Amino acid sequence: MKISILGSGMVGQALAGKLAEIGQDVMVGTRNPGKIADWLAKNPKVKTGSASESAAHGEIIINALTGTSTLDMLKSIGEAHLNGKILIDIANPLDFSKGMPPTLFVSNTDSLGEQVQRALPQVKVVKTLNTLSAHLMVNPRSLADGDHTLFLSGNDDEAKARVTSLLTEWFGWRDILDIGDITSARGTEALLLLWISMSTKLGTSNMQIKIVR
Amino acid sequence: MKISILGSGMVGQALAGKLAEIGQDVMVGTRNPGKIADWLAKNPKVKTGSASESAAHGEIIINALTGTSTLDMLKSIGEAHLNGKILIDIANPLDFSKGMPPTLFVSNTDSLGEQVQRALPQVKVVKTLNTLSAHLMVNPRSLADGDHTLFLSGNDDEAKARVTSLLTEWFGWRDILDIGDITSARGTEALLLLWISMSTKLGTSNMQIKIVR
Repeated sequence: MKISILGSGMVGQALAGKLAEIGQDVMVGTRNPGKIADWLAKNPKVKTGSASESAAHGEIIINALTGTSTLDMLKSIGEAHLNGKILIDIANPLDFSKGMPPTLFVSNTDSLGEQVQRALPQVKVVKTLNTLSAHLMVNPRSLADGDHTLFLSGNDDEAKARVTSLLTEWFGWRDILDIGDITSARGTEALLLLWISMSTKLGTSNMQIKIVR
Repeated sequence: MKISILGSGMVGQALAGKLAEIGQDVMVGTRNPGKIADWLAKNPKVKTGSASESAAHGEIIINALTGTSTLDMLKSIGEAHLNGKILIDIANPLDFSKGMPPTLFVSNTDSLGEQVQRALPQVKVVKTLNTLSAHLMVNPRSLADGDHTLFLSGNDDEAKARVTSLLTEWFGWRDILDIGDITSARGTEALLLLWISMSTKLGTSNMQIKIVR
């Protein structure tokens, strides 16, 4: 399957590496492939291109950009390469401008997921994978054999069902929970506040939430 | 032990009922005991009084008021009845004024827990029990035999240790996680956004978070 990954940071690399490893046709969108030359040498199956080339390549788009760059980058790619496609949105609206710990630049009455969906009404935005470490996103079974929960928010039920099967097939996710339309992204994006406190206190990012029900 | 419970809604009743049942000396602070006359008839060991009488009675204070009434009520009780004591703060800053679902009237860069601590600097505020249903607060073992997580935020380590033993002893909590100083209440209060989405989607409040680590 042709997959576009926007962003070549830790999250983009984890996803691109794993997806290429399992035989997917991945193109990472990055302005500066030179910056990840060492990583690309170890992941020779991963293609690179501009953000627009990557989006044009992908049947599915994964947004692994920082929260602050997400809207500008998506707008610069333009609707022609995005409309009708599923956009898996992993970005969190983290504002590091006032130092650590970060705060959220949108929250409570709105979310970055909603902003993306409003900016691109013809795109099927599915907010997910934004509540855990890059390692656990693609290796959920490495913790408690995968007995923990991944949240899914979005307005398109078919797109959510598709993303659920893909994440199960690609990475082995066992417990994927649809929590509602894209406004429910307010809840998972705000979870970052708790995640950061816990991660600081426990001294690890190797933890996850399980919804016991 | 003499315990003050401020607020006689669902949360106050669940706590007062259970604590009286296990032999604690509970006084509920309420302006209008007539409103809970039926409940009091079934829970004859529970005392009632004004909020100030209840606070004066308690060695430990439990704030089970609504978020919107918390600060005014605590200020009206006054520091004399509160200073030096542990205040278990369960209130969430839920704003229902714009309809359902509620939003938060303080979040992201501040929290109700912090507002309470700033208003009462000599009180040992421990934010906890605010992330789950009233039933599960006092009956954690009724779900997955208690294999789920309760969060604790506060500036006073001794007070947090004390509250941890009390909640274990009173209700049988198994997994209580100290997530940091009172600023970490931003994370647990914002968790309500996720909780409300999930509860709506799953059609139940009988669910809880487990931090898998």
